[in-house]
Amino acid sequence: MRIAVDAMGGDLAPTEIVKGAVLAARQIPDCEPVLVGDKARIDSELAAIGDVPKGVTVVHASQVVDMHDHAVDVRKKPDSSIARAVGLAKAGEAAAVVSAGHTGAAVAASMLNFGRLQGVQRPGIGVPMPTVKGSFTLIDVGANIAAKPLHLLQYGLMASIYAQKIRGVERPRVGLLNIGAEDEKGNALLKETHSLLSASGLNFHGNVEGNEIFQGVCDVVVCEGLAGNLVLKSCEGLAEALLTIVRSEAKSRLNALGARDPAAAGALGGTFKEILGGIQSRTDYAEFGGAPLLGVDGICIISHGRSDARAIQNAIRVAGEFASRHINEEIVRAVAALQQPA
Amino acid sequence: MRIAVDAMGGDLAPTEIVKGAVLAARQIPDCEPVLVGDKARIDSELAAIGDVPKGVTVVHASQVVDMHDHAVDVRKKPDSSIARAVGLAKAGEAAAVVSAGHTGAAVAASMLNFGRLQGVQRPGIGVPMPTVKGSFTLIDVGANIAAKPLHLLQYGLMASIYAQKIRGVERPRVGLLNIGAEDEKGNALLKETHSLLSASGLNFHGNVEGNEIFQGVCDVVVCEGLAGNLVLKSCEGLAEALLTIVRSEAKSRLNALGARDPAAAGALGGTFKEILGGIQSRTDYAEFGGAPLLGVDGICIISHGRSDARAIQNAIRVAGEFASRHINEEIVRAVAALQQPA
Repeated sequence: MRIAVDAMGGDLAPTEIVKGAVLAARQIPDCEPVLVGDKARIDSELAAIGDVPKGVTVVHASQVVDMHDHAVDVRKKPDSSIARAVGLAKAGEAAAVVSAGHTGAAVAASMLNFGRLQGVQRPGIGVPMPTVKGSFTLIDVGANIAAKPLHLLQYGLMASIYAQKIRGVERPRVGLLNIGAEDEKGNALLKETHSLLSASGLNFHGNVEGNEIFQGVCDVVVCEGLAGNLVLKSCEGLAEALLTIVRSEAKSRLNALGARDPAAAGALGGTFKEILGGIQSRTDYAEFGGAPLLGVDGICIISHGRSDARAIQNAIRVAGEFASRHINEEIVRAVAALQQPA
Repeated sequence: MRIAVDAMGGDLAPTEIVKGAVLAARQIPDCEPVLVGDKARIDSELAAIGDVPKGVTVVHASQVVDMHDHAVDVRKKPDSSIARAVGLAKAGEAAAVVSAGHTGAAVAASMLNFGRLQGVQRPGIGVPMPTVKGSFTLIDVGANIAAKPLHLLQYGLMASIYAQKIRGVERPRVGLLNIGAEDEKGNALLKETHSLLSASGLNFHGNVEGNEIFQGVCDVVVCEGLAGNLVLKSCEGLAEALLTIVRSEAKSRLNALGARDPAAAGALGGTFKEILGGIQSRTDYAEFGGAPLLGVDGICIISHGRSDARAIQNAIRVAGEFASRHINEEIVRAVAALQQPA
């Protein structure tokens, strides 16, 4: 299966993106990544890796949508790597797209080229987030900053299907992120969404508060896109700051210990690095395979801007599963069948 | 100075609340906490502590607003500890109120009894949050879930004055929490608020994203109350989950080490506890003295529901400083002088 990969998108592009595509081609059966971007640079990266599987191909694109561009600028850059990657999928030359570049551009290119799935009102981005036990999907994190209740209902439905088909959750528990647990909490949008979700036939858990979601009480957490984006980025910023504080505290205690007992400090330093490694592997977005843009008539997996090769490899794997497990067909069926309140 | 303390509010009430009031009376000059709540229970806590400073007094209240009550239920419980505490302040028998109880009830009681400060459209809760360098104030976190641009502008102004007077920040940098750094990002509310803040004369830093705020780029971060509440609680939930993961990773590595070398594991366990303690003291809300409800014609400091004695002591200290440094008078002057865009 051919997966179009935006080779120029992401903080570590093209090096890590190209590496991730090669890893995917080596390790995922029938996976044929199409690297889209500056051919000379991509070829040079491939040459540096060496022994490139035959399935890896390159499609040249002369432009790049960079982080200073506006999302809509993707129209002005028709030969950008993201526009070409989406174009390949639209033309049937790839089953799906993976990009770690400008999120807004990936959303805009997907909307322009793929359009919406039948019955879906607004696409949404569902981002995987870690819990103490596993992960959940937060949807939407910014594809749509003018959400209506029906949009949020459809987000819950689409992310439920994704959780079933990709993560193997039999009956995903759906929560509505709100400022309190009681049914009537929140503004008009949240109250009406609560009613719609209650009557939807989904496995609706009710309102959930932010202090619960990381305990693993839900598999899907529905949120309006603007607030979802603020929550996502704040959580990322906090996690980073906390790990900075953990490291600086460890360093100062280890230095103090080292002055008294260098051998003990050395041993603890090693164990502490193991601990940090364990934390990282349990919270790292790279493990979760990227965030699907749900609701477009095509497949676009948005990877974190800092994606390394492993994150890209996982995103390519998920993109292939998204296609082979017919998630979009399932969404169209489920949206049509969705129970509306009487 | 007399500070009315809701002795029945908070997960650890009344024990830790009473302890915190006694600590405050012992350590803060001229501080006279008035413990409001079930007199028999408070007296019993005081007797258990012993050697209670003369400044500590008790005012009986027969009711409690508990976490299952609605905020507006404070009207139905006129003899609740929070209603009585606010009543004391309203009657001039206390300079300020401190409560770790039901936030909505504290806000509702303050709004009903104190009313708004002259010129202030909507009160907001400004909660202190840690950064890698110190702290910032996030305002609003849920006092007002139907914010207009002028409300957000006033939040920036009020929290700036608070940062100056309480935290000693000379010229507080104010950021607007948004989904991107560019001026025109966000919905209509955010765009208009950006214009108002730009023209306000405040030290406006522009839009800030969630991944920056914990790096200490701003002293005040303005946010609409519903999103602010979701961000606050999600960050609390994430921090808790991360520390759970840190502890579980540490435990499993230390156990593995202990099987090989019990003495080394014991030593490492001790140092690890020191590290965790250091992290906690740098991120603990208890250090920050509670969240002021800004914009009411009175003083109400809302403490975290899990407040221990130290958190309550710090909140009482801040409540006294709020009064003696004439923050409300300053807010009224500044609101009147606020430059409006041409």
